[in-house]
Amino acid sequence: MKIEKLTDTISLLRSVEQPDPDYLMTVREVIADVRQNGDEALLRYTEKWDGAKLESLKVSKEEVDEAYAKFDKQLIGDLEEAAANIRAFHTEQARSQIDFPLAKNSYIQYKISPLDAAGLYVPGGTAAYPSSVLMNAIPAIVAGVERVVIVSPPNMEGNLPDSVLVAARIAGITEIYKVGGAQAIAALAYGTETIKAVDKITGPGNSFVALAKREVFGRVAIDMIAGPSEIAIIADDTAYADELAADLLAQAEHDRFASSILITTSISLAEQVSKEVEKQLKLLPREDIARSSIENFGCIYIAESMEQAVAAVNELAPEHLEIITEKPEELSQKIKHAGAIFIGRFSSEPVGDYFAGTNHVLPTNSTARFSSGLCVDDFVKKTSVVFYSKEMWEEQYPKIARLARLEQLEGHARSVESRSWKKEDSE
Amino acid sequence: MKIEKLTDTISLLRSVEQPDPDYLMTVREVIADVRQNGDEALLRYTEKWDGAKLESLKVSKEEVDEAYAKFDKQLIGDLEEAAANIRAFHTEQARSQIDFPLAKNSYIQYKISPLDAAGLYVPGGTAAYPSSVLMNAIPAIVAGVERVVIVSPPNMEGNLPDSVLVAARIAGITEIYKVGGAQAIAALAYGTETIKAVDKITGPGNSFVALAKREVFGRVAIDMIAGPSEIAIIADDTAYADELAADLLAQAEHDRFASSILITTSISLAEQVSKEVEKQLKLLPREDIARSSIENFGCIYIAESMEQAVAAVNELAPEHLEIITEKPEELSQKIKHAGAIFIGRFSSEPVGDYFAGTNHVLPTNSTARFSSGLCVDDFVKKTSVVFYSKEMWEEQYPKIARLARLEQLEGHARSVESRSWKKEDSE
Repeated sequence: MKIEKLTDTISLLRSVEQPDPDYLMTVREVIADVRQNGDEALLRYTEKWDGAKLESLKVSKEEVDEAYAKFDKQLIGDLEEAAANIRAFHTEQARSQIDFPLAKNSYIQYKISPLDAAGLYVPGGTAAYPSSVLMNAIPAIVAGVERVVIVSPPNMEGNLPDSVLVAARIAGITEIYKVGGAQAIAALAYGTETIKAVDKITGPGNSFVALAKREVFGRVAIDMIAGPSEIAIIADDTAYADELAADLLAQAEHDRFASSILITTSISLAEQVSKEVEKQLKLLPREDIARSSIENFGCIYIAESMEQAVAAVNELAPEHLEIITEKPEELSQKIKHAGAIFIGRFSSEPVGDYFAGTNHVLPTNSTARFSSGLCVDDFVKKTSVVFYSKEMWEEQYPKIARLARLEQLEGHARSVESRSWKKEDSE
Repeated sequence: MKIEKLTDTISLLRSVEQPDPDYLMTVREVIADVRQNGDEALLRYTEKWDGAKLESLKVSKEEVDEAYAKFDKQLIGDLEEAAANIRAFHTEQARSQIDFPLAKNSYIQYKISPLDAAGLYVPGGTAAYPSSVLMNAIPAIVAGVERVVIVSPPNMEGNLPDSVLVAARIAGITEIYKVGGAQAIAALAYGTETIKAVDKITGPGNSFVALAKREVFGRVAIDMIAGPSEIAIIADDTAYADELAADLLAQAEHDRFASSILITTSISLAEQVSKEVEKQLKLLPREDIARSSIENFGCIYIAESMEQAVAAVNELAPEHLEIITEKPEELSQKIKHAGAIFIGRFSSEPVGDYFAGTNHVLPTNSTARFSSGLCVDDFVKKTSVVFYSKEMWEEQYPKIARLARLEQLEGHARSVESRSWKKEDSE
């Protein structure tokens, strides 16, 4: 793994790419097709792209029960404990209505209410990610969303992975459809005969899915467009090279575009970690992917000081940040921009990916500067309420009318003044 | 104003339009030009499109002071009182960090921190909207955003309206630039020599501005893409026709695409309102705009029952909803989707536009189903923090490793297991 001197501009800083125009055309065609042809289009695309000729889009209760019955009991216990941890922390995020009394028996209010329906995209492909099911579903359920739906592309036999069905059952989701790609996003946004439209779509996916989400944004809400996963680690010479190497590789194994960065003040640590990465790489099942990621998007930076390291991290705004130094908590106070921060050597990043209770859907591509991981807030909306009494209105309407006229909105002024035209009052 | 029987599908339901491809091309060219040529491009576009040859993009302190000194003192008082009301209510929205203790001296946390910088677009054109300055700036300032910037297109003399400068000063903003259109959005997203990039862009604008915001979304955060303004009113025969007509016209005067809908159970009220609208239209300075809006996007619906009226409103998810009935608070409990709700005849919509303290930047085009008005949350981000003690790690890591292996992420499993390779421990 390469070692560089940290300079003021981090060379690996990445940002969001513009979509490929060819992909975009395909995605638009798929969306239009699903809007027009509904279920027929979904079944056709599923046969064409997933190789599965389905009888029914919907996963039956029997399929879920069967998957659960044959699933490893210890793993069910692990998933249930993870779900309980996630539920507990997300329940703390739930907010209550703000009641704000004004003078003269008037008030304003801020009502917090759940969305009616949310759709969760679960990617298919080689591996299944039950942890993503929990991380996306639980915030919606804690928020009080009544209808939470999963869509996921089936394998060629027309099935979804057992682990996804088991995680869905643990999360409490019963409405699951065998459909993926841009066609699944179109179905969630516009509805078909079988799949009713939702209000918000979350969850990661390939380029087609990401583009489709961008296309339907506005019609429905979407979560962020996720980029490749990233980790930055700040470490000093109290850290162990083998542990840091393992953490860098845990990120790198995700995909070829994943980025793993270590920033340290210790040259000897940097050298040890570089060697350890090579040693551990050879033993990793996904060596190929991880090696490509480390070579193209990995770097060990030597910082002159911890201040310089912190400044670099704040510029990078990484998705994940580990701080493995003598006083990690102190240092963490200086971090302004990161999706999630892991403090000390016993809190390696997979602790948050799977188990601690925080969400693992986090902002990538430096968007931690201005955005947050998935949370209960993402599944509620806020409605303001205004009540002015007659007495309050009498006192305030001349000011409101003057402000309206300042903006040349005479109709607005007349609206508040119109109440004064009455002789009698209903109150 | 036309009267129709309310049926199950409201004919005026609107949704987000796809952008015009010609506009999009222009916007992309402008953005690329500003990225490449910086200030020079901004000055060139301002001369070309706003007809102003500027010496400096930045508004000087003298310009602001001069505008303030000559401004009507009563109006300054009104704006200051409005600002104080907005500040008070938005301060209630601010949240504090969540500290969540776990077993064995471990914890997880949710840190809430302000964005570093926010840019507020203030439209130019015939009228100036100081209220929009307050509504966009105050939530950012209450959130703790250190740098809040205004951009707005100058008139041909190279000036911004006094009322905008006065509102900016009242809100506490000192960094103001004379630049509008897609070029202003590009400058805020990418930065130029004079204008440093921000993290989030809010505020309404014309089609070019809306398209440019959509284009830079991801590079920076944006608020919603605002559509034309809308009001729905639910009224029974306790309401006064002249007041309802005035409220419908207050919305209609905004622009030709604004939508004003009254839903009532009273046929006689419907007929009176229709006549009143015509009568008041003739006396309105913006008669032309309001008439076009009422004719194309206005309607009075006769509902069979209040239940039917409520169901229609929930389908419509209007930006603004007035409830002027015998028991408006009771009815408001049944409303699931609306940007803001105004209760009773003394709380007409301009009360919220200007003065009560709630925000007037609200979701349009039925997006109140899943989104909220501008608020303090829009200017903060949340960072999760995980700390596992050695003892906690020892207890939990086997579960985490098993879950990682279930997802075929061996590197993740080894990351948490790597800690066990140590003989000695630093703690």
